[in-house]
Amino acid sequence: RRGNYATATATDITVFQDIIGHNHVLTDPSELEGNNIDWIKTVRGQSSILLKPKTTAEVSKILKYCNDQKLAICPQGGNTGLVGGSVPVFDEIILSTQRMNDFISVDPVAGCVAVCQAGCVLEALSQELNKHDIIVPLDLGAKGSCHIGGNISTNAGGLRLLRYGSLRGSVLGVEAVLADGTILDCLSTLRKDNTGYDIKQLMIGSEGTLGFVTAVSILCPQKPKSLNLAFLGVDTFEGLLHVLRKAKQDLGEILSAVEFLDSACMGLVKTHLNLTNPIGEHEFYMLIETSGSNTQHDEEKLSSFLDEIMTSQTVSDGTIATDLNKMQAIWGLRERQAEALLHEGYNFKYDVSLPTHVMYDMVLDTRRHLEGLCTSVVGYGHLGKCDGNLHLNVTCPQYNQTIASAVEPFVYEWTAKHKGSISAEHGLGFKKRNYISYSKSNESITMMKKIKKLFDPNGILNPYKTLPDT
Amino acid sequence: RRGNYATATATDITVFQDIIGHNHVLTDPSELEGNNIDWIKTVRGQSSILLKPKTTAEVSKILKYCNDQKLAICPQGGNTGLVGGSVPVFDEIILSTQRMNDFISVDPVAGCVAVCQAGCVLEALSQELNKHDIIVPLDLGAKGSCHIGGNISTNAGGLRLLRYGSLRGSVLGVEAVLADGTILDCLSTLRKDNTGYDIKQLMIGSEGTLGFVTAVSILCPQKPKSLNLAFLGVDTFEGLLHVLRKAKQDLGEILSAVEFLDSACMGLVKTHLNLTNPIGEHEFYMLIETSGSNTQHDEEKLSSFLDEIMTSQTVSDGTIATDLNKMQAIWGLRERQAEALLHEGYNFKYDVSLPTHVMYDMVLDTRRHLEGLCTSVVGYGHLGKCDGNLHLNVTCPQYNQTIASAVEPFVYEWTAKHKGSISAEHGLGFKKRNYISYSKSNESITMMKKIKKLFDPNGILNPYKTLPDT
Repeated sequence: RRGNYATATATDITVFQDIIGHNHVLTDPSELEGNNIDWIKTVRGQSSILLKPKTTAEVSKILKYCNDQKLAICPQGGNTGLVGGSVPVFDEIILSTQRMNDFISVDPVAGCVAVCQAGCVLEALSQELNKHDIIVPLDLGAKGSCHIGGNISTNAGGLRLLRYGSLRGSVLGVEAVLADGTILDCLSTLRKDNTGYDIKQLMIGSEGTLGFVTAVSILCPQKPKSLNLAFLGVDTFEGLLHVLRKAKQDLGEILSAVEFLDSACMGLVKTHLNLTNPIGEHEFYMLIETSGSNTQHDEEKLSSFLDEIMTSQTVSDGTIATDLNKMQAIWGLRERQAEALLHEGYNFKYDVSLPTHVMYDMVLDTRRHLEGLCTSVVGYGHLGKCDGNLHLNVTCPQYNQTIASAVEPFVYEWTAKHKGSISAEHGLGFKKRNYISYSKSNESITMMKKIKKLFDPNGILNPYKTLPDT
Repeated sequence: RRGNYATATATDITVFQDIIGHNHVLTDPSELEGNNIDWIKTVRGQSSILLKPKTTAEVSKILKYCNDQKLAICPQGGNTGLVGGSVPVFDEIILSTQRMNDFISVDPVAGCVAVCQAGCVLEALSQELNKHDIIVPLDLGAKGSCHIGGNISTNAGGLRLLRYGSLRGSVLGVEAVLADGTILDCLSTLRKDNTGYDIKQLMIGSEGTLGFVTAVSILCPQKPKSLNLAFLGVDTFEGLLHVLRKAKQDLGEILSAVEFLDSACMGLVKTHLNLTNPIGEHEFYMLIETSGSNTQHDEEKLSSFLDEIMTSQTVSDGTIATDLNKMQAIWGLRERQAEALLHEGYNFKYDVSLPTHVMYDMVLDTRRHLEGLCTSVVGYGHLGKCDGNLHLNVTCPQYNQTIASAVEPFVYEWTAKHKGSISAEHGLGFKKRNYISYSKSNESITMMKKIKKLFDPNGILNPYKTLPDT
């Protein structure tokens, strides 16, 4: 049900035009089409106003006005989210970071802290940093569209978390505008700063419900001198876990990514995207990436590791890529899974963290549970030092209530039973907010609601998201 | 001035005895002596009650009662803090984690997440984890006394931050009791969990002012197979920065610590602690530690690095340690600085983060500024990937108001001018709280006060700490 917000009027539009200029206030429904629907086309809103500010001061004026008028806002970055967090639910005004894409600086001395506006596209930022021989500690399939501000608001995980940790460690600073227009300047570029409460942590992962992120500073690792990618076929999930353990032991500090997909996933990218499997057919495929500072040492570690797992017959088939084209082709098999899945029709998407040893049982149990109901149940995701992050997808020609009722809360109960999280990296957004209790205690949820009330008393920032309906 | 709190009565003591037993309620002034004063003897409180609960449930009952009665509490771990955060200011009841020292678990499958009570001593925890071939991602000079709960409440940095990042990334979960006795169970053991706001981040670094940390879960790295330590003499700070840059480049992913001390610091540990300098006399000394998974590769990287810096004549003198005794002896030169300094009398201690290229200028400027006033001005600390963390110490026979007025706000102004933080890792506690504005904006401080009010409406948790006097 729509909250008790005001409905935007012609007067409001005039005010917005005065703040950011006519050209940046869009009201033509056809121009708003792509902003009203998420990219996997599962959630559609009815917004009739899209605002594209350029500066933090403009965002501040807009929010102050909206807060005074009780106009609800939907913050939006690249709109690549998977839980309906970045599209309006009713007629919220869309506040986009699209024009806030200035790259600000890399510190000239140490050369390891990048500062930029929230609307920088991850890939563009990455290319900019390449000039400074550093990398963003974050990489994900949506890099060509997602905005760094959205990544931070989602606390995106992605492909480099294994090596560089979560954004909670690498984001050094955030500038955000609060609901009442207050500009909160926590844009520190220091790695160490213990002066008071770390408020920026509340901006990380809160999906725009506590503040609108306008700029960020990020600690960026050096660009590795040596990069290797192994693509392996494994025939059991137990074998896959054995390879993971060996990789952690033998590759140690140079291990930078361990990803997997099952045979059904390989089928999807072959069928729908015409990609080529560079090795034979197997139940599971693993990508193991190393990155380090010494080519010879890295190659020695990798070949010793591969020798051992080949000798032990856990892996019978694989290929190694060191040139960029071949690496990109292999990464495509993993990164383009979400895109391939869309060709199947409707996707029920789940993003859970689980202890690695039970991780694939979830795919098997869900497959059994839904037998005959859906087109396919597939699994891929990130393996790591600790818990694994499974992307479980259930596909069917179109949205189907029978499947919906069969799969939820089934997957959430399964996850909670195995002490996992119902959202490892995608967030809760609109679609998962009412399932938060499967992963958080009542006391925690109560405190979250109080924090929301403190930061946004009128509830204008991204309503119907993150927190459960009361 | 003492806040408007109740004064504890005999009735209150009886209530505490009922909750945790007679033996664990201490009221004898001589028994409380060590708990009323910080270890560097700069802050003394007047508490007459020390409570030693064992369980989270007991902490909950105590806090609920104190909140109802408006009795102020001073949470205390190992009482090794350096900013007066862990001792009472007036008659606050001391709530100690001393008996809350149960090691709880290491996850049996991945073997990388340790869970324990807040009162575990860091070194004891470290020894326990050694059995599982993992390490705590945190190490600091006070390891023999400090409690892990206190480390988290301070967001301690220490010697391993360069390699393993801050506790904000490696602490996966926190259990804390709020002022009203609510037990907040955020004791997740998952590396990835994006379900709502990350409330545990508010417990990290808030110095017991928002909640009393009772248990923690930590992501622990694998124990390195290979460990090397180089101890180098360098004659200029510019040369030292050159060595740092080379170390980052050549040692890359195996670099695990870069520390430095100046010649005055070396003098202190030789004079007061009878330690031996294993190399010749130099203006600066550097400790460079590597840890990795392959002994041969690590040694090759290290010797190639040392060859280059010796050839370039930046470093003319040094020694390498691979056996544990020699490594410990060298680490002692750095880790025992705080202890050696105490022999000089009173210490004005500053812990600032600064861009590395101006870092030592602060020591030189302070030395000039205080010439003739104090015994010595010395500098040592942590170098890193980004900003450096300088421990600046001004010593004199006893506390001296003239020096105090000369040194503060001088050092804070110097730090702010160079865009540093006035507390890199020690926190603000009692001694630095009123200088927070040198590092945080007014808007941030306002939000901090609102968060404090939300979590602790009666202000019973560690009053007079972290936030500035209003």
